[in-house]
Amino acid sequence: MLITKSQVKYIQSLGHKKFRDAEGVFVVEGPKITGELLGAPNMRLRAAYGLREWIAALSPALLQRLDERTTGLLGGERRITEVGPIELQRLSALSTPNQVVAVFEKPVFPDPLWTTGLYVVLDGLQDPGNLGTIVRLADWFGVDGVLCSPDSADVFNPKAVQSTMGSVSRVPVWYGDPEAVIRHSLGMPVWAALLQGESLYGQQRIRQGFIVIGNESKGIGLAIQELATHRITIPRTGEAESLNAAVATGIILSHLVGWGKPDGANGGGRV
Amino acid sequence: MLITKSQVKYIQSLGHKKFRDAEGVFVVEGPKITGELLGAPNMRLRAAYGLREWIAALSPALLQRLDERTTGLLGGERRITEVGPIELQRLSALSTPNQVVAVFEKPVFPDPLWTTGLYVVLDGLQDPGNLGTIVRLADWFGVDGVLCSPDSADVFNPKAVQSTMGSVSRVPVWYGDPEAVIRHSLGMPVWAALLQGESLYGQQRIRQGFIVIGNESKGIGLAIQELATHRITIPRTGEAESLNAAVATGIILSHLVGWGKPDGANGGGRV
Repeated sequence: MLITKSQVKYIQSLGHKKFRDAEGVFVVEGPKITGELLGAPNMRLRAAYGLREWIAALSPALLQRLDERTTGLLGGERRITEVGPIELQRLSALSTPNQVVAVFEKPVFPDPLWTTGLYVVLDGLQDPGNLGTIVRLADWFGVDGVLCSPDSADVFNPKAVQSTMGSVSRVPVWYGDPEAVIRHSLGMPVWAALLQGESLYGQQRIRQGFIVIGNESKGIGLAIQELATHRITIPRTGEAESLNAAVATGIILSHLVGWGKPDGANGGGRV
Repeated sequence: MLITKSQVKYIQSLGHKKFRDAEGVFVVEGPKITGELLGAPNMRLRAAYGLREWIAALSPALLQRLDERTTGLLGGERRITEVGPIELQRLSALSTPNQVVAVFEKPVFPDPLWTTGLYVVLDGLQDPGNLGTIVRLADWFGVDGVLCSPDSADVFNPKAVQSTMGSVSRVPVWYGDPEAVIRHSLGMPVWAALLQGESLYGQQRIRQGFIVIGNESKGIGLAIQELATHRITIPRTGEAESLNAAVATGIILSHLVGWGKPDGANGGGRV
């Protein structure tokens, strides 16, 4: 089946935040993440354009569920459209398209009260890949969600979504003013990852509070730094000037919240 | 000064490993990493093409050192060439060029004996960004170098080099057969990051050995798994299926080797 110019234009427009926000949808590419999101109970597919082999590999059970849970793109079209390699290339933002381009509705999560629970707070994090990787980490470590300052990257940016590896369906990501949230949290502890803080090692395990990660080059803004109840640093034994923000988040989470269950009890995933 | 077609072609060719290997050089872009490499004692600049403001910001001391340490690109040309924005765009592989495109000779590091020291081993790691981030991590934690299986990504791939943030000048990266190296290491311990291993937490700190990280989707090959003396897993408390390979490496390094000095003694960098 041929795709129309307006379909191509629509999909391409979703590379821009403005259009994603207006439509309430986002794009993913590739069978792995598309399959994960198709299987997630809270996700709704708008449309998927896939090669014959991708469609053939979908299970009948999944296809039936799709009928019940999908809504039409541009009104009343088929949910899953078979396309050829040349059409897929036109729809894809990748230099090497990967079997399928899919449009999902953004998942909706209720706002928390912010007076209990464990949250990662991102203050001006810029790189979409870092953001997606941090959402995946929050999922791994069972964090209750990620609060992003308004100047942070958009989690529905194609690179960010891709980096979540499907965790975007499970981990709430909110955009809001971290300073206001922290001030209204009734004294939840705030752990700020800083240049000059106490060593991360030897800290007690935490069960609730905010773990704040700053901008890749400027770090955490002063207003939020002043709200920190704990200032922590990953000790350096070598010479690199800094660590990647997502890697730093992973290290901090593993030391502060990763000790949840006794050794071996968690199974663990591929690393 | 106008750049020639052959210069543009030459720089573009260095996006391919074949040409980088034949020439023994690689490309970086942007003032931050170019400045870091210009300042590194073991790095030799072949050529840099920069906007006027980039050249104006170079210190006189650095320019003098450059005269002593640079070699010509395509024979006898000027080391630093001022270009305009349109020329820079032609040379750059980025959608938004960043002031300068520079060609450096690959740093040379002697082969170790492999019977002492601490190494990260990458078995088929595919993503250049992950590889660069791991080199940066090795630098942060003072690891002696990174051994890559031949099917791993190339550390001089532009994305990989960029992700090292300059650590490529300090951390040796070798390509070779990990199985052969481990077999000849006279019993150095081998820590393998696996799906089903012992919990990473609670392990003793290590001072020497190999820490093996596998391919992003397939993990570590069986031949190397069989050489492991310790099989470790990052315990999971949430639902994500896996962790990003560079993030997993960071978490493992922080727990196995990051405890080197007493709290607060290391200063630490930006996180």
